[in-house]
Formats: sequence, structure tokens, C-alpha cells
Amino acid sequence: MQELGQADRQRLFERFGRSYAAGDTIYDEGESAEHCYLLQDGRVRLVKNIRGAERSLTVLKPGDLFGEDALLPRVRRSASAVALTDAQVLALDRRTFGVLLAGNPEVASRLVEQLVRRLRHAEEQLENAMLRDQPSRVVNTLLRLTAGLEATSEGYVLSISPLELSSRVGLDVDAVKKAVQQLRDGGYLRIADEKIILPDLDALRQLYQLLGMKEEVRGGFP
Amino acid sequence: MQELGQADRQRLFERFGRSYAAGDTIYDEGESAEHCYLLQDGRVRLVKNIRGAERSLTVLKPGDLFGEDALLPRVRRSASAVALTDAQVLALDRRTFGVLLAGNPEVASRLVEQLVRRLRHAEEQLENAMLRDQPSRVVNTLLRLTAGLEATSEGYVLSISPLELSSRVGLDVDAVKKAVQQLRDGGYLRIADEKIILPDLDALRQLYQLLGMKEEVRGGFP
Repeated sequence: MQELGQADRQRLFERFGRSYAAGDTIYDEGESAEHCYLLQDGRVRLVKNIRGAERSLTVLKPGDLFGEDALLPRVRRSASAVALTDAQVLALDRRTFGVLLAGNPEVASRLVEQLVRRLRHAEEQLENAMLRDQPSRVVNTLLRLTAGLEATSEGYVLSISPLELSSRVGLDVDAVKKAVQQLRDGGYLRIADEKIILPDLDALRQLYQLLGMKEEVRGGFP
Repeated sequence: MQELGQADRQRLFERFGRSYAAGDTIYDEGESAEHCYLLQDGRVRLVKNIRGAERSLTVLKPGDLFGEDALLPRVRRSASAVALTDAQVLALDRRTFGVLLAGNPEVASRLVEQLVRRLRHAEEQLENAMLRDQPSRVVNTLLRLTAGLEATSEGYVLSISPLELSSRVGLDVDAVKKAVQQLRDGGYLRIADEKIILPDLDALRQLYQLLGMKEEVRGGFP
């Protein structure tokens, strides 16, 4: 929370701070949600049990809000939070969170922006999940990533690691790498210096439509 | 925005208000996002073009925030917004939105809660989309809806319409109705007075695990 001065941070931490050692559980999936948390220091991992298999959802960094479900009435934790390193958090119940927002408009603005970003990410992943075939998901994500970029003489240049792309697409890294390779073999993209270069967006859009037609033949959207 | 007094509303509307007639487009998918909107009066529909087919995402009501992507830098509209009835909105750029938040902590709190609710909804739908078979999606949603409820002598009672359930599951109404019927035939639920009654959650959880095993045999998670 860079928006809070050192003195404010100190004061808040004295009242609402909690410290965890690496490996500690902050809350468990299924528990009733009483507090939301602002991560101050360290790293926290959110994990979810999906039919007996533990899935890592995300790793949080200082400044991140988590456990925000506690701001809704009568909700249970949809995932567990585990300290990945030693970690310090502010634990705020709904009322206190409201007071914090009211007294710190900068914090309020930043949290709204954070939530909007996560919402956009979730909605993009949801859209992708509706697409049946993996190449479609990758192509759709690549097209989306070009939004707001200016083309260079080479085309649209995306600075994105395979891991980051995999998170945006919502598929594992190997599946994404394979699809990227296929697209490269097809001449739809080039890779140079850890960057993905898309020389011809129209061709990529056409491919996306074509993949969709193949999908329709196989039975349309779920 | 019930949190704003009549005088505040008037003053804000004079500066930032815009009126649309039913059928007017407020913004188009793909446009650069400059303003976010607070719906004051009327209904607005968000629609998205998915491979040539227009899909209705949601219908907004007064008090709802939309077009909030404009709060992020360099973003394009991920959907179009169309006035479903005559509608009045506040159109706020990023800076003005920050000023509004700072001056109206009640509004800030309510918007954060709204975003958290939407985020939770999107994340639930995303989890559901990861499940391949439709019965699993319905069972998973039913189990989730019981969270925070107390059991009655009959079991857990959910007051939810087929349409609402369909939105929570992320499948069309007919598919959800069919799955609910199958569950009723299997003795997992009863329907009475537009309510769904779940007499035995353990049995439902077991069914969920069993459906998952069937899925694994067919090749595991995507």
C-alpha cells in the first residue's frame, strides 16, 4: 500500500496486522469468511481443491487484496490462502474495510482498479473457456493482447513470456507452446528475443473465424 | 446510487449525465475505453460478438457500474453497451471517477462490493467451465449455493428460479432443467413451490466425486 505513509502503515499494522511464517495457513477453503486481507509483505498463494487435486490459483504480492469474499454477506472461502514466505497482512472485517476506504481515497482507487483488472482477467478466461479447441483459445488471446498497441514496421510485437501467456489463455504451458509453434509453422507469428511478433492481424482474425467454423461443424458452442 | 442525496445526484447529472433513448448504443465493442458509467435510470444490455453471433451478457439496473475497463490504461471495450429502455447514466473518466470515490465513501464501498460480487460470480463460472460434463456443473453449483445456509428438517432449501440457476451454472436453461430432472429422478433433490430441496448433501458430494472419476476415465481436465 504505497498510498499509505509509513506512519499510517505502522498505526494500521498495530491494530489490524497479523504475521505468518512460511507455510502457515491464513484461511481454509470452506471456512466462513470473516476478514479480507491486504498483503503488506511477503508472498501468499491461493490454492483450491478440485475433486481431490490441489490447484494453485495465483501467487499474491504486497499491495494485493485477497479473501475479499468477506465483504459479501454469509460467504464461505472459495479457496485456501497459504503463506509462501514469511508474510505480514492487514486483516480487516467488513466494517473496518469500509472505514479504511473512507479515510484513504487513494487506497480505495487502487483497490477498485485492482478488482477491475482481476474481473477483466476472469472474464477473458471465461470467454476462452467457452472456445472448445486450444488453438482458438491461443489465437483469441493473442488478438486481445494487441488491443491498444501500435503496429511497428514488423507488425504487432508482444512482450510476453510463455508462462504469462499460459496464464492469460488458461491452458498449461506445454499446450500453449505447442499451439504457438503451430502458428509459427503456419506463418502467423514469429518469435524473436522472447517476443511474439504478429505480422498480419487480418490473417490471424481469418484463422480465428475458420477455427470457429470447424467448431460449429463439430456441434457448436457448449 | 441511493448513497447520493437528491441534490448530489442532480449536481453530478448536470456535469456528467448523459441520456440515451431505447436502442441507442452507448459504446461499441472494440472501441477505445474512455469513460466508465454509473447507470442512474433505465436498463442497459451488454452484448458481445462471438464469432459473428451476438451474445447477450447481462442486463444492468440502476446503481450498476459498467464500462469499468476505462479505469485501466489503454483498454478496448470487450463488449458493447446498448440502452434497452430510455436510460440515464453518469459518464466518468478515470480521474473524475477517482474524485467521486474520494468524496463519497459510501459509493466507494458499494462499488467495491459490486465488483467483488461480480468477480466471485465470474470465478465460479470459470470453475464450472473447467468441468466437462453438464451434470457436474449443476451439482457443483447446487453444492456451492448451500454454503452459509442452515439445514431445515427437510434438508437444504434453495429459493432459486431455473433462469437464475442457469445463469449461476453458465449453461442454458434447458440443459440445466434436464440435469435437475435427472437429479430428481435419482433422488438427489426434490422440487416444491419453486424451491429446490436437497435432502442429503453427502450423497450429492459423493455423486460429484463419482462424476469426476468418470471424467478422468475420459481423459482428465482440459
